[in-house]
Amino acid sequence: MTMPLKMLESFLNKRISLLLKDNRVLEGKLVGYDDYMNMVLEDTEEKTDEMTRKLGVVILRGNNVVRMTLVG
Amino acid sequence: MTMPLKMLESFLNKRISLLLKDNRVLEGKLVGYDDYMNMVLEDTEEKTDEMTRKLGVVILRGNNVVRMTLVG
Amino acid sequence: MTMPLKMLESFLNKRISLLLKDNRVLEGKLVGYDDYMNMVLEDTEEKTDEMTRKLGVVILRGNNVVRMTLVG
Amino acid sequence: MTMPLKMLESFLNKRISLLLKDNRVLEGKLVGYDDYMNMVLEDTEEKTDEMTRKLGVVILRGNNVVRMTLVG
Amino acid sequence: MTMPLKMLESFLNKRISLLLKDNRVLEGKLVGYDDYMNMVLEDTEEKTDEMTRKLGVVILRGNNVVRMTLVG
Amino acid sequence: MTMPLKMLESFLNKRISLLLKDNRVLEGKLVGYDDYMNMVLEDTEEKTDEMTRKLGVVILRGNNVVRMTLVG
Amino acid sequence: MTMPLKMLESFLNKRISLLLKDNRVLEGKLVGYDDYMNMVLEDTEEKTDEMTRKLGVVILRGNNVVRMTLVG
Repeated sequence: MTMPLKMLESFLNKRISLLLKDNRVLEGKLVGYDDYMNMVLEDTEEKTDEMTRKLGVVILRGNNVVRMTLVG
Repeated sequence: MTMPLKMLESFLNKRISLLLKDNRVLEGKLVGYDDYMNMVLEDTEEKTDEMTRKLGVVILRGNNVVRMTLVG
Repeated sequence: MTMPLKMLESFLNKRISLLLKDNRVLEGKLVGYDDYMNMVLEDTEEKTDEMTRKLGVVILRGNNVVRMTLVG
Repeated sequence: MTMPLKMLESFLNKRISLLLKDNRVLEGKLVGYDDYMNMVLEDTEEKTDEMTRKLGVVILRGNNVVRMTLVG
Repeated sequence: MTMPLKMLESFLNKRISLLLKDNRVLEGKLVGYDDYMNMVLEDTEEKTDEMTRKLGVVILRGNNVVRMTLVG
Repeated sequence: MTMPLKMLESFLNKRISLLLKDNRVLEGKLVGYDDYMNMVLEDTEEKTDEMTRKLGVVILRGNNVVRMTLVG
Repeated sequence: MTMPLKMLESFLNKRISLLLKDNRVLEGKLVGYDDYMNMVLEDTEEKTDEMTRKLGVVILRGNNVVRMTLVG
């Protein structure tokens, strides 16, 4: 069995894609997180239906996150 | 009586279907979860009204989940 | 006085109908629950305005539930 | 001063009307409740803008309730 | 400094107006409350955009409240 | 570093403007607050897109607040 | 690994941009925060789809925040 936080640890220093509750997608290198799944991303790109934008370092509140995947 | 987390344990290593609050459906092999029903899925497919998409490994926040069933 | 969790216990192994926050209705045999009113249903049917669907065994997150009644 | 849970106790075995967050109204005899204001109603009628329906015994999750009043 | 619960205490036995999250307004005599700002009102009138209605004694869940003021 | 509650303390007895989640703005003299950022305002004016209204003393639930600023 | 609150500390006394749940953007110098990610900003500008506005010192409730980035 792979605990969610253990899997998140394996995502460290890799590019991940996060779907947020407002349908926004953030793609960036995961450099940190805490027990609430607050996260720190580097080299982040943000994508909505209308646009793509470079954001650099992003701190993200975990309660906005729906799902996380590795970018492949 | 079958406790919900006990039933979830019996879903381990099987393909499950998750309905999320935003009406999105995730289908994948359940490889882990925690007490908040955060989950780890493998070989995940995501289905919305508009599209189907392969996502691979997914970490899912439990508070977005409505219901879980076995696929089968 | 009948405590809600005591009443829920009396629903065990009976068919119940659950109204969810998104207006979805789940009907199935209640085979388990926990203190958060997460529930396990068997032989579940799901009904929305548009369709009815057989789901089999369902694990349901309690925070999506509005009300529960006995069926039949 | 009348504490809310004390007032709720005085509603026991009387018909009450509950307004829910989705604008649904439940009317029934209050036969039990807990500290989260989860409730058990008997002889329940449910009223939405479109219809009235008999529901019998209902277990209601407290976090969906807006307000409670005595009926009649 | 006047703590919110201290101010609420000073509203006891006076007519207050409560704005709820769904834009509903309840006006009534405050006869009780608890630490969650659940409240008991007497001689309550409910006002929405469409109508005014007499409700008598009302138990109100605090998490639906936006703001409270004295009437008159 | 200025902690949020410390800054809020410095707002005491000054006129502040509060933006609420429903886009409502309350302007009044801050006379009290607690750890949940529930607040007491005096000489309050409420502004929505459609109107301005005098409200006098207002008790405000903190979980409806988006941001606070000094007025003037 | 960089914990989110540690990264937030490194944002102190720098201009940051905050995206809120209602799509509002606040840009200002971060001068303080607490464990709930409540924040204090100075020289704040607020941007919505319709307008830009100077707000000065702002206290922001953390539960409205989606993501934070450095400006510039």
